[in-house]
Amino acid sequence: MKVLISRKTGKYYYFNGVGDLHCKEGVVKNEDINSGELIVKSHMGKELLVFDANPYDVRQKFSRGPQIITDKDLGYIISKSGITKNSIIVEAGGGSGVATCFFSQIAKKVRTYEIREDHIEVINKNLELIEAKNVKLIKADINKKISKEKDFDMLFLDLPDHHKVVEKDILGLKKGHFIVCYVPSITQVLDITNVISNRKDLYLEEISETNVRNWKAWGQVARPHHRKETDFTAFLVFIRKL
Amino acid sequence: MKVLISRKTGKYYYFNGVGDLHCKEGVVKNEDINSGELIVKSHMGKELLVFDANPYDVRQKFSRGPQIITDKDLGYIISKSGITKNSIIVEAGGGSGVATCFFSQIAKKVRTYEIREDHIEVINKNLELIEAKNVKLIKADINKKISKEKDFDMLFLDLPDHHKVVEKDILGLKKGHFIVCYVPSITQVLDITNVISNRKDLYLEEISETNVRNWKAWGQVARPHHRKETDFTAFLVFIRKL
Amino acid sequence: MKVLISRKTGKYYYFNGVGDLHCKEGVVKNEDINSGELIVKSHMGKELLVFDANPYDVRQKFSRGPQIITDKDLGYIISKSGITKNSIIVEAGGGSGVATCFFSQIAKKVRTYEIREDHIEVINKNLELIEAKNVKLIKADINKKISKEKDFDMLFLDLPDHHKVVEKDILGLKKGHFIVCYVPSITQVLDITNVISNRKDLYLEEISETNVRNWKAWGQVARPHHRKETDFTAFLVFIRKL
Amino acid sequence: MKVLISRKTGKYYYFNGVGDLHCKEGVVKNEDINSGELIVKSHMGKELLVFDANPYDVRQKFSRGPQIITDKDLGYIISKSGITKNSIIVEAGGGSGVATCFFSQIAKKVRTYEIREDHIEVINKNLELIEAKNVKLIKADINKKISKEKDFDMLFLDLPDHHKVVEKDILGLKKGHFIVCYVPSITQVLDITNVISNRKDLYLEEISETNVRNWKAWGQVARPHHRKETDFTAFLVFIRKL
Repeated sequence: MKVLISRKTGKYYYFNGVGDLHCKEGVVKNEDINSGELIVKSHMGKELLVFDANPYDVRQKFSRGPQIITDKDLGYIISKSGITKNSIIVEAGGGSGVATCFFSQIAKKVRTYEIREDHIEVINKNLELIEAKNVKLIKADINKKISKEKDFDMLFLDLPDHHKVVEKDILGLKKGHFIVCYVPSITQVLDITNVISNRKDLYLEEISETNVRNWKAWGQVARPHHRKETDFTAFLVFIRKL
Repeated sequence: MKVLISRKTGKYYYFNGVGDLHCKEGVVKNEDINSGELIVKSHMGKELLVFDANPYDVRQKFSRGPQIITDKDLGYIISKSGITKNSIIVEAGGGSGVATCFFSQIAKKVRTYEIREDHIEVINKNLELIEAKNVKLIKADINKKISKEKDFDMLFLDLPDHHKVVEKDILGLKKGHFIVCYVPSITQVLDITNVISNRKDLYLEEISETNVRNWKAWGQVARPHHRKETDFTAFLVFIRKL
Repeated sequence: MKVLISRKTGKYYYFNGVGDLHCKEGVVKNEDINSGELIVKSHMGKELLVFDANPYDVRQKFSRGPQIITDKDLGYIISKSGITKNSIIVEAGGGSGVATCFFSQIAKKVRTYEIREDHIEVINKNLELIEAKNVKLIKADINKKISKEKDFDMLFLDLPDHHKVVEKDILGLKKGHFIVCYVPSITQVLDITNVISNRKDLYLEEISETNVRNWKAWGQVARPHHRKETDFTAFLVFIRKL
Repeated sequence: MKVLISRKTGKYYYFNGVGDLHCKEGVVKNEDINSGELIVKSHMGKELLVFDANPYDVRQKFSRGPQIITDKDLGYIISKSGITKNSIIVEAGGGSGVATCFFSQIAKKVRTYEIREDHIEVINKNLELIEAKNVKLIKADINKKISKEKDFDMLFLDLPDHHKVVEKDILGLKKGHFIVCYVPSITQVLDITNVISNRKDLYLEEISETNVRNWKAWGQVARPHHRKETDFTAFLVFIRKL
């Protein structure tokens, strides 16, 4: 896969290698894209930068059914929860599979619970795109299965009712490791923290939200980028298993 | 390694398994810590939570010579630059080895350049602590070596003069992949962007800073956590190889 | 009143003109402070900058009983709610009188409700300090009096139960003008918005929080100031009278 | 003047009292707007809320030639610099007159320097709209006049080259009071701080940027408002006269 960026607008186009690329800058020929040139021209004479897609770019291209978990959150989840390439992650629900794919590229194994058939289709499509071989996609309700899951390093929850899962016995999560909840509304956070305050085996480590601010810097000018402050996405709740 | 958290103050203590733990809450006996109990008492009767250290905890304990790169930045660097467990990372300078250790836990191989002997000692100590086997630590100036480095997926720079490296030929960085600069002052960012504006093979993708805001939520109250907004650390400059 | 700033630490001292100033930098003589010199020395040889206190400085010196409303919030309340020097403001509760004093320096008249005797004493002391002559301090429960207040341009509420006042008939607030609530927890905001959704004569214009970020800039270096990001203080709820 | 808000979209319309209002919701009749009803209907049956414009609303309607200074900055400038209804403010350049009008509604007197004829026209139009009688608009270069200005409480600068003014003798600014610079780029801030570091009669009190974050709260849901984080506008540099 290749990525092309319009020189003028900065817009990104993802090129899967088949046929020519038709985009706002016009038609860019297949042979031009594959010529090895760093800059190519469309039939309208517009210039585009060309480069090989890296794993980040491939994730950006994913079929986007449900709302997407962003890089700012995915990154912090990994670094804060201590995930490594030896980790096993259990996840629910799968949603569009963006987190699933990211986790599969970082961790050893991922087991993903999802109940909706349409979401499962999207996830499978995205997993194929990145050729993931370490993901087990399970059509089931995590609430009914979590007590049987064994030996994992993180439980990641992106659900309407996280607190119902947090109430369960989560025996298979290794001690000292995290349940991470991705939570859109602060009132849902309260539902979770109120469950934890009654649990001796869980410790509320941190509630946080991540933000990324973009900057412009050129010549002798530097200032924050207008309209590129990232939006709020969700609160992240990090819960320790004791 | 185990982690103990004071119930009252929330303070963390890292226990390496040798002897008893002496801390502000008093003395906690080795046998108590290893008893399997989730909550133990010090000789002063203070309660502490006990759990196994995960890779995140181990990183927190690192010997801290030079300034530390934080989780909020490490996470975003990984997710935004498309690093996976198959990636090869070249890094300079190593500093305290926090980034080195994190990268070694995520990526396939890490090659780290560092010129200061005292830093190399700290890095080696930290690499031993996490039993890293995929890091090559090189005592040399990256400016003299970068043109000979081959086949890598990210160049990470935490240096006083990033722009000098960015001026070099960076032939071994795969096309479409990133140079990531960790930059404390915005004026240093300008030094970098002014180099890039003269290069046809580099594309300035993003200048950003990451922030994590902590929240308190209990009972019926929810509000941002006083004095737990994360401090500014550095600007992150993401540069594409074309 | 004069203000002295330690050259070394940047710490502020407020000098009321009586006797010598005793501070961390040592003793500074009255005659030195009043000499007209811009920089004076303490008996320990430490240098301090001297200047006349302006209204901002006087507010900083206020007796601090209850928690203080900060400049970042006071300023936005004024600019967003359209207050001018011709405005009449009704306020409850008075707290430490910081908002009362600020409003009295800007607006034509202020009427402040406060039920606690200890708070009233603090407010009166602060009003004397700034020689305010346009404030009427009323020891009464705003809930019982608000329906009788006439012809005012803003109702400012800093109370535990704002929503109880918002439920009342607020006939005297001019049409198109604002009720502004200063609210520490987001759950209290929900109590307010849920009252408004049942009122045809009130319109929820904005819920906001203000932040001020401090910067360091000297020589060729510029970056956000470590540990000087302002803390969260409160949510501000702006409600229009229709 | 009246303000109408679309019930569905939340869009604001400013009605100057002449004829009917033509807007996206259709035509709203003059007699309906002036009927005293809180909610009126357009000819398309769309509902709009009606209320009297307050000074805030009038400012929103200003002719917008040059870029506008926002409420978040105007408010903090007032509260941080200690401006009251007894203050005299000197300002340059006038720009669109938004700051001029705001200052005139708060302070005792405003003297505004502006060299561009087109800006002066816009400012005069806006001053008429709010019926300001305490503003002296001066067509001249502040650099040539500032040393002759007497007895003022704040010097507000919104110029391309603030540092040139800061280099001058600013004898008329009262001791302890502020020069406030409104500065779009951080590199311009460095130009200013480097001038101050050579001046014994000026003290760099604070460099800051203000931010306002909007929230949504309804029913049982509360979260930051998507796409309503305020954009970066400018750095504010507060400089004390000693």
